[in-house]
Amino acid sequence: MNHQLQLNKNGELLHLLTIEGLPASILTLILDTAESFTGVTEREIKKIPLLRGKSIFNLFFEPSTRTRTTFEIAAKRLSADVLNLNIAVSAQSKGEALLDTVNNLSAMHADMFVVRHSQSGAAHMIASHVKPDIHVINAGDGRHAHPTQALLDMFTIRRYKQDFHNLRVAIVGDILHSRVARSQIHALSTLGVPEIRVVAPKTLLPNKVERLGVHVYHDMEKGLRDVDVVIMLRLQNERMQGANLPSNEEYFKYYGLTPEKLAKAKPDAIVMHPGPMNRGIEIDSVVADGGQSVILPQVTFGIAVRMAVMSILAGN
Amino acid sequence: MNHQLQLNKNGELLHLLTIEGLPASILTLILDTAESFTGVTEREIKKIPLLRGKSIFNLFFEPSTRTRTTFEIAAKRLSADVLNLNIAVSAQSKGEALLDTVNNLSAMHADMFVVRHSQSGAAHMIASHVKPDIHVINAGDGRHAHPTQALLDMFTIRRYKQDFHNLRVAIVGDILHSRVARSQIHALSTLGVPEIRVVAPKTLLPNKVERLGVHVYHDMEKGLRDVDVVIMLRLQNERMQGANLPSNEEYFKYYGLTPEKLAKAKPDAIVMHPGPMNRGIEIDSVVADGGQSVILPQVTFGIAVRMAVMSILAGN
Amino acid sequence: MNHQLQLNKNGELLHLLTIEGLPASILTLILDTAESFTGVTEREIKKIPLLRGKSIFNLFFEPSTRTRTTFEIAAKRLSADVLNLNIAVSAQSKGEALLDTVNNLSAMHADMFVVRHSQSGAAHMIASHVKPDIHVINAGDGRHAHPTQALLDMFTIRRYKQDFHNLRVAIVGDILHSRVARSQIHALSTLGVPEIRVVAPKTLLPNKVERLGVHVYHDMEKGLRDVDVVIMLRLQNERMQGANLPSNEEYFKYYGLTPEKLAKAKPDAIVMHPGPMNRGIEIDSVVADGGQSVILPQVTFGIAVRMAVMSILAGN
Repeated sequence: MNHQLQLNKNGELLHLLTIEGLPASILTLILDTAESFTGVTEREIKKIPLLRGKSIFNLFFEPSTRTRTTFEIAAKRLSADVLNLNIAVSAQSKGEALLDTVNNLSAMHADMFVVRHSQSGAAHMIASHVKPDIHVINAGDGRHAHPTQALLDMFTIRRYKQDFHNLRVAIVGDILHSRVARSQIHALSTLGVPEIRVVAPKTLLPNKVERLGVHVYHDMEKGLRDVDVVIMLRLQNERMQGANLPSNEEYFKYYGLTPEKLAKAKPDAIVMHPGPMNRGIEIDSVVADGGQSVILPQVTFGIAVRMAVMSILAGN
Repeated sequence: MNHQLQLNKNGELLHLLTIEGLPASILTLILDTAESFTGVTEREIKKIPLLRGKSIFNLFFEPSTRTRTTFEIAAKRLSADVLNLNIAVSAQSKGEALLDTVNNLSAMHADMFVVRHSQSGAAHMIASHVKPDIHVINAGDGRHAHPTQALLDMFTIRRYKQDFHNLRVAIVGDILHSRVARSQIHALSTLGVPEIRVVAPKTLLPNKVERLGVHVYHDMEKGLRDVDVVIMLRLQNERMQGANLPSNEEYFKYYGLTPEKLAKAKPDAIVMHPGPMNRGIEIDSVVADGGQSVILPQVTFGIAVRMAVMSILAGN
Repeated sequence: MNHQLQLNKNGELLHLLTIEGLPASILTLILDTAESFTGVTEREIKKIPLLRGKSIFNLFFEPSTRTRTTFEIAAKRLSADVLNLNIAVSAQSKGEALLDTVNNLSAMHADMFVVRHSQSGAAHMIASHVKPDIHVINAGDGRHAHPTQALLDMFTIRRYKQDFHNLRVAIVGDILHSRVARSQIHALSTLGVPEIRVVAPKTLLPNKVERLGVHVYHDMEKGLRDVDVVIMLRLQNERMQGANLPSNEEYFKYYGLTPEKLAKAKPDAIVMHPGPMNRGIEIDSVVADGGQSVILPQVTFGIAVRMAVMSILAGN
């Protein structure tokens, strides 16, 4: 995939498809803009007219009430008109049909597409196809990328740790199937995190994951030692093909985040999770609801980050 | 369930979960506020900016296009942003998952949850859990309660009969499975209706229903004699477990509201039904569409009542 | 069906149910009004407050994400509140239940119903039933009519050919199952097109189609000779009952629009299709995406035409 597709020739963001290849300046611009939006969502009237009269289409080829809701609420707080389209993938077997759908919606003077698709590259394909005044946001494509999730994670880390340049971050769990992990690793690298660790059993790691510049751990207690940030991943049972895994109980024993394992991290380490959590599988409820958890703030910041992405795209 | 949960320490309404335990002053406040909103829905521009910038989530764990629509339209006429979430109960088998969903939406700075759930107590559980600035409206939970339906019924009765203190009201049909009936009985009692009758076969009455302060009739002609208000209930075929009932024809013969049976009531008695009606089963079309029917005005008043509840909650 | 139902006694449009019986003056008024709206959808803020505070219900008894979206976006650009109701037809087996649903929504002070139904006459039945201040738009009923589609087609033809009075128009494909074709033929006749051709195999033509004033061709090359406009229809596989047809390949051979067949038409002929296209079945991609295709402009004009219909109805 052509990652430069997302920038115009002035280096401004046209589409948000993947974190890969985006310069730190763009990531920082998004985080700074999001900072200004966190105030809006705490006001009495949580609405600003920035995108009034814009038509934003939530194109969900893969159902996700949760993610769709975060984009819908972000768009509505920017006063945009939101159109939700849940499109069965069966009716979209051919890429040609997908493009016909997109062409049609573009012809309705859409301003932005938020795309969720089970196939990697779907958002890229759409972005490479639309007219230059239409912007595409990837809301998750197959195993490939989920850039707004990674950005809200970076926002969260910056909020709690201020600076990226002296951090040790561990990402734990099902790296193999996780578009979130892929996007996080690119974002952390770009923003200057010196040590990124992935902690997982071999069966849940992509081939040659070290090439992404991460340190691999199979032992969770070692992997968490002295880290500043612990990012837990959801065990994607629905994405598993075949028996990659032992039982949930055994997974929890080795890779579930318990207070004991968390004690290996720095005392002020924060715990993150993209949600929805499998409590008792990848994370113990005591930790999920504990003092080091910033899982709910992640959700809050997610709205501001999506507002930021939408408003930056609409301005470029 | 803790019914005091819905009031703050000044006795103001924080959540609307059940009519049970609410003082008459609160019910009357809602009815009076609704009175002021009936004008809005008749205007050329049916919109007031009272809830502008508020985010209202319709959390429907049980599908109900009809009820969802009434809340959605009420919220939109108050200028709120409405987010519809239809959540399959299968994905919500555990209460913990339900609370995680609610926590997530709360973290998005939700202002209000309208909750429909097949399990009694779901709205209570959510209300007991959310932060104090989030308000919960029960839009029907299992067999337990459906308070906005009861309030719109009270509004309708007051419109047509002015005063509650000299009325005889009969509720007819499937009391056993009806959250509506339960809420109506509490509302009628609280507002001072001296004689509340329930008319049903034994198999469709809860155990010891007399404890609610109602008079029980199995013979409909006796039960309707000299009443001012006849409230018919929907035969909840979809809620029946096992063969509680004879055929629809036989049910209609004994408990269907026909002109003949209605003639036993006072000549100016009104006929109500929460909808959707099973015509020819619990009610004859001649009655449903006749001069004593106030079934469609109930729907109209329902929008004003829901606007009233939402605006009162948002102000407390 | 009573086609006069859609006009009030001053001859103004109350409902848009079918093109049949509408005078040319009404069609022209809609096209002229749409002309003024094409500018709105190209502006920075694509929104005008014409229908602010109006409640428009999309009543879809037959699923159609695409058509629903066009009406939703048109209504939102007019600042109306839009309520989407997808109603399973199974729950609506009886007309009585349909009317109860409509009565209920009317009682909520609906201003407009956009109705899609698999049964011919559904929109008429609703229009004949509602109060005079509620307007009904037929968004497709069975095999009967799809008037907004025909109007946007007329808009497109007028844009590219200016005048209807010297045109030769061919409609090609599954005329039998097409409500679109029926509406197009009425519109073309009313607007004064002197020569309307239908091109199809016998099995896809209605009995005595000539009575509509069209010329019948079974040979596509002859049927397209010297025409100004080629309107392709979607092969409605989902509407076929039994084996009316040979294989898709054979259909394409005889009735698929290829560059070779299109060469028989005038050199400046335009190619139209209501979408969604079955590429390689009724139309070759080379033609669909070629210089004579105006298929995407049709979609764009469709929004303006629907805005025009809604605003005209709301004013009458």
